[in-house]
Amino acid sequence: MSHTILDRIGPISPPDSSAVQAAQRRLDSLTKPPGSLGKLEELAARLAGISGTALPSYTNRAVVVMAADHGVCEEGVSAFPAEVTQQMVLNFLEGGAAVNVLARQAQAEVVCVDIGVNGNIGHPGLVKRKIKYGTDNMVAGPAMSREEAEKAILVGADLVAEAMSRGVNLFVTGEMGIGNTTASSAVMSALTGITPLESVGRGTGLNDERLRHKGVIVQRAIELNKPDPSDPLDVLAKVGGLEIAGLAGVILKCAASRVPVVIDGFISTAAALIAARLAPESLDYMIASHVSGEQGHALLLRELGLVPMLDLGMRLGEGTGGVLALHLIDAACRIPAEMATFESAGISGAEEDLPS
Amino acid sequence: MSHTILDRIGPISPPDSSAVQAAQRRLDSLTKPPGSLGKLEELAARLAGISGTALPSYTNRAVVVMAADHGVCEEGVSAFPAEVTQQMVLNFLEGGAAVNVLARQAQAEVVCVDIGVNGNIGHPGLVKRKIKYGTDNMVAGPAMSREEAEKAILVGADLVAEAMSRGVNLFVTGEMGIGNTTASSAVMSALTGITPLESVGRGTGLNDERLRHKGVIVQRAIELNKPDPSDPLDVLAKVGGLEIAGLAGVILKCAASRVPVVIDGFISTAAALIAARLAPESLDYMIASHVSGEQGHALLLRELGLVPMLDLGMRLGEGTGGVLALHLIDAACRIPAEMATFESAGISGAEEDLPS
Repeated sequence: MSHTILDRIGPISPPDSSAVQAAQRRLDSLTKPPGSLGKLEELAARLAGISGTALPSYTNRAVVVMAADHGVCEEGVSAFPAEVTQQMVLNFLEGGAAVNVLARQAQAEVVCVDIGVNGNIGHPGLVKRKIKYGTDNMVAGPAMSREEAEKAILVGADLVAEAMSRGVNLFVTGEMGIGNTTASSAVMSALTGITPLESVGRGTGLNDERLRHKGVIVQRAIELNKPDPSDPLDVLAKVGGLEIAGLAGVILKCAASRVPVVIDGFISTAAALIAARLAPESLDYMIASHVSGEQGHALLLRELGLVPMLDLGMRLGEGTGGVLALHLIDAACRIPAEMATFESAGISGAEEDLPS
Repeated sequence: MSHTILDRIGPISPPDSSAVQAAQRRLDSLTKPPGSLGKLEELAARLAGISGTALPSYTNRAVVVMAADHGVCEEGVSAFPAEVTQQMVLNFLEGGAAVNVLARQAQAEVVCVDIGVNGNIGHPGLVKRKIKYGTDNMVAGPAMSREEAEKAILVGADLVAEAMSRGVNLFVTGEMGIGNTTASSAVMSALTGITPLESVGRGTGLNDERLRHKGVIVQRAIELNKPDPSDPLDVLAKVGGLEIAGLAGVILKCAASRVPVVIDGFISTAAALIAARLAPESLDYMIASHVSGEQGHALLLRELGLVPMLDLGMRLGEGTGGVLALHLIDAACRIPAEMATFESAGISGAEEDLPS
C-alpha cells in the first residue's frame, strides 16, 4: 500500500553534495570569520543541497494551510468549539488570521485547502479537496479508512505539483483543525512509543484537568485501534487526521521535487513524522522553522533529528512559525549572493597560526 | 561627572503603561488563543509602552555601526590583525559586509561611524567622529581618559538626535573593532565581578591556548587599572573601548527619546551594561535581538535581565543579529495592526469553563 503511494509521489534523491560543497567554499570566502553566521550558514549549505545550486533563491513561496475537523472533539479535548475550524477557514480566506499577516510580511501566498472540514464553506478562494466531513471519533473506531488516508496524502502531493507548475519553489506547512493536537499526539505516541502523558499539550488552552483528560483519550484511542507502529499509514488512518495526511503528502512531494519544505509547529511535525517514516530520505528536504510552546513539539523534533531555527513560545499553528522563519531562509540566501569576499574587498584573513 | 553626561542626554521616562494596556487588550481580542504568539505578543506590548502608542510602526530604522581600534591588540588577543578594522569599515561603506546585506533585507540604513579607528579612512559615506586613533593598551595603563569616554558617549547620543531629526524612529547597535571582545569582557568582569575565565570567548576564532591568554590579559588589565565597579564611566575609560562608549550613548539617547534600541551581540551588550549602570531605566527601551555564540554573551544578557529573541549561534557582531531581528519587530507591529478580532471575524471564543 505505502509502496503505491510513494510510487505515485515519485522517488526522492539525496541532496546535491557538490552544490553543498560549492556553497561551503563560497561561505568560507566571505568577509567574516568562518562559521560566524552560525545556523544561517548551515541553512545556506542545506538549501544549496536541496535545490542543487550554490546560490538558491526562493521568490515564489506558498504556505499550504490544510483544514479538517476531528470526530474526537466530541470527547472535549479542545478549549474551542469545533465550529471554529470553519470560522477560521473563512478568516484565512478573508486575510484576517495571523498566518495571513505573517505571510503578507514574508510575501508568501496562502493556499487554504478544505481537506476535511465538517461543513460546506462557500468562498471563491477556497481550494476544495474534501475527503470527508471530518474524521470519525477515534475512541469509537478508526479516524478514517486507509484509503481515505492515502487519498488525503495524494491531495497534498498533487497540490504541490500544481503550485510548482505555476512557479512556486518553496512550501510552508500550515493547518487548522479544532482537535488536531490530539490527533497529532496520538500519531506521535503510536509511532514513537512516547507516552500520551508526554505527547499531549494544552493546545489552544486546556487547564490541568482537561489536559489529563486529553492524555486519557489519546491512550484510549491507541488501545482501541491498535495502530501498527511499523506501518505509518495504519497509524495515520486510525488515530491521525485528514490535514495531517495532506501535509505528509505536501512534504513527500516537496522532497521528491527537490524543493525545501518549511515545517511549522506540532501538527505539521506530526505530518513530518508520517512522511519520515514512509520515506526517511524526505527529512533532508525539511526545514524546521520553530519549536512551539506545545509540550510534545520539542520532543518530536528531537525524535526526527530536526533543529528548529526559532524558539519564540508560539503555539498557534496555522503555519505562523513557518512563514515567520522565511525571513531566515531569505537571509541565508542573500548572504552568499550579496556579501563581498576577502579577496574582492582586499581584507586580511585570520593569522596563520590560528585554526579557522 | 556621570551626572553631567546624563544631563546632556536628557531624562528617561518610564514606558507608557496605558499604551501597554491598550496593546494587551487589542492582542487579546485578536483571532487566536490569548498569548499564543508567545514572545511576539510580549514584544508588541513592550513596543507599545516604549513608543507610547498601541499600534507602533517603525518604517525608518538605522543600524549605527561604531568602529574603533584597541591598543590591547598588541597583546595578541585577536585572530585577525588590527588593520582589519579599517578594511572592514571600507567594506561597510561599499555595502559588502554581512551587516549591509541583512540591513538591506530589513530596509535599515547603515550609519558607519569612525569613532576611534587607528587610521584615516577617506570615504564620503563615513561619519567622522574620531575621538582618538584607537584606545591605548589597557595592560599598560587606562584605555582612555574619562573625558574621552564621556566625549564618545556624547558622539553616540548626538548621532541619535541627528538621525531622529531626519525621521529615524528605531535604532540598532552595531560595531567593528579588532580586539573589542577583549574590552567587552573586561567591562563585563569589572562591572559584574564575573571572572575573566567566564567573560572571555573566542571572538573571531581563537584557539584554546590563545583563549586562555585573552583571559589573562583581561585579568591583568583589571588588576592594573583597578576600575571602580560603582563608577561605570571609570570602568569604561580604563578597560573599555570607544565604540562601546559610543554605543552606550546611542542606547541612552534612544531611551531618553522613547525610541526602541535593538541590542546586537556581545560588544553591544557590554555597551548596554554601561548604559544600564549609568541609568537603569534605560533597560526598558532595550530589545535584545539575539544571544551569540560568544561565551560571555548569554551570561551578560542574564545579568541585565534581557531576553534575546534569536539564538542562531551567530558570533559576527557588526549589528548582524540586530538587523536580522527587525523582522520580528515588524511582525510584532503587524499582528495587532492587521489581524481580525474575534468580533470582526464572527469567531467563537474559548468555552466558558476554561481559563483563557
